Amino acid sequence: MNYNQIFDQAIDRLHAEGRYRVFIDILRNKGAFPNARCFAGHNGPKPVTVWCSNDYLAMGQHPKVIEAMEEALHDVGAGSGGTRNIGGNTHYHVDLEAELADLHGKEGALLFTSGYVSNEATLATLAKLLPGCVIFSDELNHASMIAGIRNSGCEKRVFRHNDLEHLETLLAAEEEATPKVIAFESVYSMDGDVAPIHAICDLAEKYNALTYIDEVHAVGMYGARGGGISERDEAAHRIDIIEGTLGKAFGVMGGYIAADTRIIDCIRSYAPGFIFTTSLSPVLVAGVLASVRHLKSSSEERDAQQAAAATLKAILTEKGIPVMDTTTHIVPVMVGDPVRAKKISDILLAEYGIYVQPINFPTVPRGTERLRFTPGPAHDEAMMHELADALVEIWDRLDLALLRAA
Amino acid sequence: MNYNQIFDQAIDRLHAEGRYRVFIDILRNKGAFPNARCFAGHNGPKPVTVWCSNDYLAMGQHPKVIEAMEEALHDVGAGSGGTRNIGGNTHYHVDLEAELADLHGKEGALLFTSGYVSNEATLATLAKLLPGCVIFSDELNHASMIAGIRNSGCEKRVFRHNDLEHLETLLAAEEEATPKVIAFESVYSMDGDVAPIHAICDLAEKYNALTYIDEVHAVGMYGARGGGISERDEAAHRIDIIEGTLGKAFGVMGGYIAADTRIIDCIRSYAPGFIFTTSLSPVLVAGVLASVRHLKSSSEERDAQQAAAATLKAILTEKGIPVMDTTTHIVPVMVGDPVRAKKISDILLAEYGIYVQPINFPTVPRGTERLRFTPGPAHDEAMMHELADALVEIWDRLDLALLRAA
Ligand SMILES: Cc1ncc(COP(=O)(O)O)c(C=O)c1O
Ligand SMILES: Cc1ncc(COP(=O)(O)O)c(C=O)c1O
Repeated sequence: MNYNQIFDQAIDRLHAEGRYRVFIDILRNKGAFPNARCFAGHNGPKPVTVWCSNDYLAMGQHPKVIEAMEEALHDVGAGSGGTRNIGGNTHYHVDLEAELADLHGKEGALLFTSGYVSNEATLATLAKLLPGCVIFSDELNHASMIAGIRNSGCEKRVFRHNDLEHLETLLAAEEEATPKVIAFESVYSMDGDVAPIHAICDLAEKYNALTYIDEVHAVGMYGARGGGISERDEAAHRIDIIEGTLGKAFGVMGGYIAADTRIIDCIRSYAPGFIFTTSLSPVLVAGVLASVRHLKSSSEERDAQQAAAATLKAILTEKGIPVMDTTTHIVPVMVGDPVRAKKISDILLAEYGIYVQPINFPTVPRGTERLRFTPGPAHDEAMMHELADALVEIWDRLDLALLRAA
Repeated sequence: MNYNQIFDQAIDRLHAEGRYRVFIDILRNKGAFPNARCFAGHNGPKPVTVWCSNDYLAMGQHPKVIEAMEEALHDVGAGSGGTRNIGGNTHYHVDLEAELADLHGKEGALLFTSGYVSNEATLATLAKLLPGCVIFSDELNHASMIAGIRNSGCEKRVFRHNDLEHLETLLAAEEEATPKVIAFESVYSMDGDVAPIHAICDLAEKYNALTYIDEVHAVGMYGARGGGISERDEAAHRIDIIEGTLGKAFGVMGGYIAADTRIIDCIRSYAPGFIFTTSLSPVLVAGVLASVRHLKSSSEERDAQQAAAATLKAILTEKGIPVMDTTTHIVPVMVGDPVRAKKISDILLAEYGIYVQPINFPTVPRGTERLRFTPGPAHDEAMMHELADALVEIWDRLDLALLRAA
C-alpha cells in the first residue's frame, strides 16, 4: 500500500486531461473595480481587468456595505465566537434572517456559512426527515445540490435539463404516498438559461411534491426588490424552499434558505451542517444586511448590469465570437476543449491583462469547456471592445472558427 | 402524504425530549469582552457576561486583527467574488496558506469556508481517492468528521474513546494492503481531554495507516507558537493531515488543513466542498493572518487563558460544583439531564446576567448533558466568584447534589 503513488496518480490524471488547475493570484482594487492586481508568475503586481467575478453588481465595493462592516467590526469584533446555538447567535443574524424572509415573502429564513452548505445541509436533512423520500433533480444542478441529495441517502431521479415532460414521466412513476421533492435552479450559471418555474410548480401540485429552488445566481439580480426569478415571475409563493447565496450579487459571503416556519425550524434543529459550525462572522452579516436592504430599494445596479451584458453579447456576436444564446446576464463563449480554453485564458492574461477563467470539467460537462464572462455595471464599452478585439486576434492565432467574418 | 404533519412531528419530538433549542440573541461589546448585550425576551438590550464563547483568547477583539480587517475592507472590498479557481483567489489566501503550513511544519495548507467543511470535504475526498479505504474513527469525533466519513461511503470502524488497545484490535483485523486512515481529535472539546498522539502514530506506523487529526480546539492555544497539541507534544511531523479552525482561538471564521504538497493538491483538485463555493472573504483572511502571526510570537494570551481555566476549576471545585476532570482549558460541569441543564442556564441568564449555553444531545451523548464554561484572559476572579456563588444557589434551589459541603 503506497499512498504517495495513489496521490500522484490522481494528480497525473488531471494533467493528462489538461484540467489541472492553477489558481490566479489577484487582489482587487477597491473603488476601481473591475481592476485588480495580479501576482502569480510576475515580477510584482501587474494590473488586470477582471471579467469573471460573481460579484455581479459590485456590491462588495459599495460604500454602504463597507461602512456597515466597518461599524460591526468596531462594535462587536471579528468573529461570532460560537455556533448559532452556543454563543454565536448575534442580533445581526436575527435581523438578516428577518430581512431575507421578507425578501422572498416567506415566514422565515436560515443562514449558513455558504450557499454550498445551505444546499448540502438542507437537501440532505429534508430528505432524511421524509421517510422514503424521492428527489427529482435537474441534470444540470449544482455540485452542492448533488452533494446534499447524495448525502441524504434517498432515491434520486435525474430529469433532463428543464424538460417538463421527462420530469412528469418520472413523477408519475412513483407511488402517490411517496414523499417527493423537486430540486432545480432558477438561473443555470454556466449556460445562462432559466427554469420554467410555474410549469414545474404545476407538476409539483399535481403530484403533491415539495419544491426546492436554488436562486444563487438570481438573488439581488432579478425581481423588483432583488428576490430573484421567483419574484420576477411572481412564483415565490408557490415554492416551498428558496435557497440563495450572500457571496455573489450581494457581494459578501454566506448562504441561506427561506421557507415557512415549520420547515425552517426542522432544518435549524436537525441539519448537522447548520448546527455544528461557527456562525457567520457578524462583520459579514452586517455587510449583507446593508447590501440586501440597498438592493431591495434600488434597481440601478440591476439595470446597469443587464445593460452591460446585452451590450457585451451584441459586441461579441457582431465580431463572430461564438457567444452562447442566453436570456440572462451571463455571457458564455463556447470553446469545447479544455486545453484550448486554458490557452485562450492564458494569452488573455499574459498579453492583454484580461482575466477570465476557463471553465472545465467537472464544472461543465466534458466537450463543452468554455469561457464565461460576467460584465457588471463597471465594465464600460471601451473595455468590451478591447476584450472583443483580443478574442478575435486569439481566435485567429489558434485557428478557431469565427461564426462569420468580423 | 401530509408534509406539514411530518415536520410538526419532527419538532414535537425535540420538545418532548426537552432539547428544542432557542437561540439567545446577543451582541458582544468590543473592547469589553466578555461583556455583551442580550436582546431576546427583554425590553431592550440587557448586559450579560458571556461564559461559553469559543473565541478562547479574545483574538476576535485584538487591535491587530481589527486593524488588518479594516485595511483589507478598504483595500479590496467585502467579498472575494468567486471560487478559489474562478476569480476568488486573492493574495491574502495565498499568504495565509503559507503561514498555516509554516505553523504546522508542513509543505502546504488549504483554506475552507469553515472547520466543519474542512473536515467533511477532506475526509470524504481522501477516502474516495483511496480505493477500498477503511477509516478508524474515535467514538467521540466531531459531527463534521462523522459527516465526512459517512459521505465518503467507505468502511468505518469506530474505536472506543482514546482506547489504543481497541484501535489496535481493529487495525489488526484488516488486510495489510487495505488503505487505512485513523481520524481523531487532539482536544475533545466537550470533555476537555487529550488524545495520546504519539501512541496513535506508533500504531499508524505499525499498520501503515494515514493519520488525520482535528486540532480545532487546540490551534492557537497549545505549543510554543500555537501549533496545537501536536506542536506541544512534538508530534506534528508524524501526522499526515492536521485540521484546524480559524473561528475559535484565532477569533475569526474559516477552516483549513495542513499536509504535504501531494495531499493538499489532491484535496484542492477533487473536493467538491472546496471547489464549488465562494472563497473566504479577504477581510476574514486578513484578520486571521494577523491573528496567526500574533499568536506565533506571543504566548501571553495562551498563558492567561490557562491560568483563568485553572483558577475557575479550583473555585468551582472548592464550592462542590461537579466540575469534570480535564487536563485542558475547558471547564465542563456535569448535569446529566437536558431539562435541568436548560433550567440552570435559564436562571443564570435571567437572574444573574450570566450566559452559558446548556450542552445537550446530539452535541453530547444523552444522560451526559452539561454546562461548559470557557474562561478566557478577560474573565477575572470577581466574575468567577459571582459565577460560583450563583451556581451554588441554583444547585440548592433545584435540589442538586454538591460534591461536598461548600
Ligand atoms: C448554482 C450554485 N449554487 C450554489 C453555489 C454555492 O454558493 P456559495 O458560493 O455561496 O457557496 C454556487 C456557486 O458557488 C452555484 O453556482
Ligand atoms: C472538534 C471540532 N471540529 C470541527 C468544528 C467545526 O469548526 P468550525 O466551527 O470552524 O466549522 C468544531 C466546532 O465548531 C469542533 O468542535
